[in-house]
Amino acid sequence: MNASFKTVALVGKFKSAEIAEPLLRLGDYLHRRGIEVLVDRSTGAHLGGADYPALTLEEIGGRAQLAVVLGGDGTMLNIARTLAPYGVPLIGVNQGRLGFLTDISVDTMVETLGAMLDGEYVVEERMLLAGEVVSAQATVFKGLAFNDVVVHRGTKGSMIEFEVRLDGQFVYSQRSDGLIVATPTGSTAYALSAGGPIVHPGLKLITLVPVCPHTLSNRPIVISADSTVEILMHETNNSRVHFDSHSHVELRENDRVVVKQAPSPVRLLHPVGHSYYHMLREKLRWSEQPLLHS
Amino acid sequence: MNASFKTVALVGKFKSAEIAEPLLRLGDYLHRRGIEVLVDRSTGAHLGGADYPALTLEEIGGRAQLAVVLGGDGTMLNIARTLAPYGVPLIGVNQGRLGFLTDISVDTMVETLGAMLDGEYVVEERMLLAGEVVSAQATVFKGLAFNDVVVHRGTKGSMIEFEVRLDGQFVYSQRSDGLIVATPTGSTAYALSAGGPIVHPGLKLITLVPVCPHTLSNRPIVISADSTVEILMHETNNSRVHFDSHSHVELRENDRVVVKQAPSPVRLLHPVGHSYYHMLREKLRWSEQPLLHS
Amino acid sequence: MNASFKTVALVGKFKSAEIAEPLLRLGDYLHRRGIEVLVDRSTGAHLGGADYPALTLEEIGGRAQLAVVLGGDGTMLNIARTLAPYGVPLIGVNQGRLGFLTDISVDTMVETLGAMLDGEYVVEERMLLAGEVVSAQATVFKGLAFNDVVVHRGTKGSMIEFEVRLDGQFVYSQRSDGLIVATPTGSTAYALSAGGPIVHPGLKLITLVPVCPHTLSNRPIVISADSTVEILMHETNNSRVHFDSHSHVELRENDRVVVKQAPSPVRLLHPVGHSYYHMLREKLRWSEQPLLHS
Amino acid sequence: MNASFKTVALVGKFKSAEIAEPLLRLGDYLHRRGIEVLVDRSTGAHLGGADYPALTLEEIGGRAQLAVVLGGDGTMLNIARTLAPYGVPLIGVNQGRLGFLTDISVDTMVETLGAMLDGEYVVEERMLLAGEVVSAQATVFKGLAFNDVVVHRGTKGSMIEFEVRLDGQFVYSQRSDGLIVATPTGSTAYALSAGGPIVHPGLKLITLVPVCPHTLSNRPIVISADSTVEILMHETNNSRVHFDSHSHVELRENDRVVVKQAPSPVRLLHPVGHSYYHMLREKLRWSEQPLLHS
Repeated sequence: MNASFKTVALVGKFKSAEIAEPLLRLGDYLHRRGIEVLVDRSTGAHLGGADYPALTLEEIGGRAQLAVVLGGDGTMLNIARTLAPYGVPLIGVNQGRLGFLTDISVDTMVETLGAMLDGEYVVEERMLLAGEVVSAQATVFKGLAFNDVVVHRGTKGSMIEFEVRLDGQFVYSQRSDGLIVATPTGSTAYALSAGGPIVHPGLKLITLVPVCPHTLSNRPIVISADSTVEILMHETNNSRVHFDSHSHVELRENDRVVVKQAPSPVRLLHPVGHSYYHMLREKLRWSEQPLLHS
Repeated sequence: MNASFKTVALVGKFKSAEIAEPLLRLGDYLHRRGIEVLVDRSTGAHLGGADYPALTLEEIGGRAQLAVVLGGDGTMLNIARTLAPYGVPLIGVNQGRLGFLTDISVDTMVETLGAMLDGEYVVEERMLLAGEVVSAQATVFKGLAFNDVVVHRGTKGSMIEFEVRLDGQFVYSQRSDGLIVATPTGSTAYALSAGGPIVHPGLKLITLVPVCPHTLSNRPIVISADSTVEILMHETNNSRVHFDSHSHVELRENDRVVVKQAPSPVRLLHPVGHSYYHMLREKLRWSEQPLLHS
Repeated sequence: MNASFKTVALVGKFKSAEIAEPLLRLGDYLHRRGIEVLVDRSTGAHLGGADYPALTLEEIGGRAQLAVVLGGDGTMLNIARTLAPYGVPLIGVNQGRLGFLTDISVDTMVETLGAMLDGEYVVEERMLLAGEVVSAQATVFKGLAFNDVVVHRGTKGSMIEFEVRLDGQFVYSQRSDGLIVATPTGSTAYALSAGGPIVHPGLKLITLVPVCPHTLSNRPIVISADSTVEILMHETNNSRVHFDSHSHVELRENDRVVVKQAPSPVRLLHPVGHSYYHMLREKLRWSEQPLLHS
Repeated sequence: MNASFKTVALVGKFKSAEIAEPLLRLGDYLHRRGIEVLVDRSTGAHLGGADYPALTLEEIGGRAQLAVVLGGDGTMLNIARTLAPYGVPLIGVNQGRLGFLTDISVDTMVETLGAMLDGEYVVEERMLLAGEVVSAQATVFKGLAFNDVVVHRGTKGSMIEFEVRLDGQFVYSQRSDGLIVATPTGSTAYALSAGGPIVHPGLKLITLVPVCPHTLSNRPIVISADSTVEILMHETNNSRVHFDSHSHVELRENDRVVVKQAPSPVRLLHPVGHSYYHMLREKLRWSEQPLLHS
């Protein structure tokens, strides 16, 4: 693979001073390789005297050929969602604890990144969701989600009731705490804690996971990524729709939440030899056998 | 059993006009048996010209020897919780659909009630929970629950984090949507939809059911009804504690929710031959076998 | 769509005398439309004096352009699996109770079938699994499955232990009662009772569902239908591998069960207007809300 | 507490040579305290030249005032079940890995045991189950279980069908892989992997946990330990009933499995400060938070 990353952006965890040192080390390394280094503006505020151009994420989207993200999965999730429309591929570096999305350790990042810049990487495309809220015929909100679009009850402590349609076809009326519309990436996030399956992240699929449904046979459903999911609110009880927990909108009776695959995917770069299942084994502690043996 | 119910209160579903006819029919029947009939004040407003004394639930608690409740499970739950401290036993009449708590059909209520007044009944004691919210050493709220005391995340769409202690012993720090502290009665309510077990209602037990916990091995736990459950809020994210969904209180960091068995149980009267498992079979559709057969 | 079904086979539930009447009625109808009618040999034994050619399923596979199956889902499952390699499309008629696979009622079958022969139908392709057991380098068994290939513990009452590889990549060592490798069709069969998701049957996907795994974070995984699943037996405890419960093979230590998508799918024909979600609502009783309301 | 353990038995993991050294060390320590030391006969075979009396477990039951068990949970389970009828209390020593039942580490066992012999211990009573198989009016098998009595399908790969009665009352007919009748101790064993709740081991309760039930609303049920559970086999498909996986019996149609609380409990001794929840946190990895964070 011909890797010609001439301009690379460095993005760090928001408001974190601890990432200054590794980011500067990375910047230094890239600079010495003759690569133009950009820095995310809010990250740059923590970098002290470094004189890399500090840009907004949108500007980075327009100029960078690669973004290296330092932080946890939460940081990666936010940056990936924002950069997805620009097609900038991403590399995730964790700060010591392996992440679902940040697979490179800060301890070995320079060697690993070096090899990747030499072309030793694999590309993984991951789908995003695009959602909108339609109230009285008008779209009142639009948002992207890398993990999930979630309709959830509000503070009243009552279940909500809504109707789900797929490609216009009535699926069910559901009374529950809410409904998670998840990407494969989101299948190891909130959806998993609500009983959803793990979906291989290379697949293009949407999973609907009911949260504490009143009807016990309401189980997670895996559908095509080409489907249009419509959630029509009946009893809202001040429920809300959440996009990756980064933004949320209050819903009113008869509001519709419409969710589809987003046009641009996220492109993650991994070092050669990266294994999704190895990561799952580590994160989900699959190698341990805790139950009482008889 | 010597049944000497000389004063019987009739209580109907709040704001429901449809219960006037059956309630008047019941009142008439009781009156002809020489029983003093009382009517709940808010129910009485829908009864037209009947001249039974209309009292508050608290006054009924002080005077009635029995309360007959007409409505769904929700009505029964609220009335039972309110009358529990007064020790008034309850009979539940549903309006056509068998309830978890209202086991007598409106169609046969007069005969059934007649037999029960003749002493043909069984008594079932059910435990309640008493909860309080302690904020900066001061109790800021107290409430009873017949189903459950639930700590639940608020509108921010983020998990909450709290610590659970049982009789002062640290159990775990949990990140989740919330925690349900359920009575056996509540085991077929919200707790069941969150993955909790069914607990026979005659038992005195408390069940802790995590809602969508971050750690997949955080499973429902059944403990003694003599336990004191303490939930200490770490990250609240405007979470709330709900008592049977009838009242709720916003929680702040370091607030403690303390839950114990309430001193007075609810006493339900059932006709002889009443079967809890029959009711479960009907309500949970156990006699149907829906899966794809191979 | 130009429907030119000149030769149609009728297949009934094995050893069932009750299907004689409707099958003869169907045969009569087809015959009057000028269609050549074939009958499955074991079905024919119950048809009395009808003089349609009675053939084996294999012969039907070679000659029929369509097969109409009368019976329950179990019958349909077996016939579909056997006819799949021949590419014969199938129509399923149930005997009174809507099936997951048999969506046409015996009461309306003549009208419905008439419209379908006129071209009023939709085609649905469903994937099958092809599995084999490899023992000491040699393939000792091969089988197809429309629902699932299941490795399951035997009679000793002990868990089994095996290793799962996907496309050669190590996924995990698992201790459990077994592992279900399910098609989307099988997602509403055994896999659902073991906690797997519902997978839309039009998708090409494989779902791995652990049965009572020792490690609580071992959850169902949805993978590409292009994957090769390998299950390598460590501790067998006289475990077996089952193909749709129609055949099973005992496994020995170090045996490998290899499962892939089968080359030929099943082709189901449905009347226009058929709705998968309508069927799910009916079968899984989604319109009922059984829990205790507060 | 006045601890007067004058005769102490040492029991080790069956056929394990590694326990010789720690067992001899323990024997030596006890001997020096003036305590009579007995050794289990099958353990003694691995102890080399030690001249402690080697007895059967039954003889130990008649003579010892305390048994110290060295091994894993499986060993403890078997010894406890066998000694329960004799009322001999037990102390469990693990060989490095904390167990559910063996809470003392081999590294600190001498100090810990010393304190316990001085009276520094707490007693925990745990219930056992007594089961029997009744075939054509005759009892054909009787057994005790510390974890669970399990009815489970056999090798045919088909579900089994049976009827459950509690104290003579019909509960349901169930089609499933099987049914687990668990003690509180067993609640962290097979029952947990099948979706059952954790039940505090100090409680006297029976939990019924269906294994992969055909009807999705068939959920675990917690009942009184005074209940008599009857499982009446309809379709057996060569199913079996297992007692703690140590013994099993094949079931025939119309056989009945009857399960009750056993008359004698197991008495476990723990060092002062022992915490059940601490053990759960360790074993179930509750302190780790594995999901993808957003």
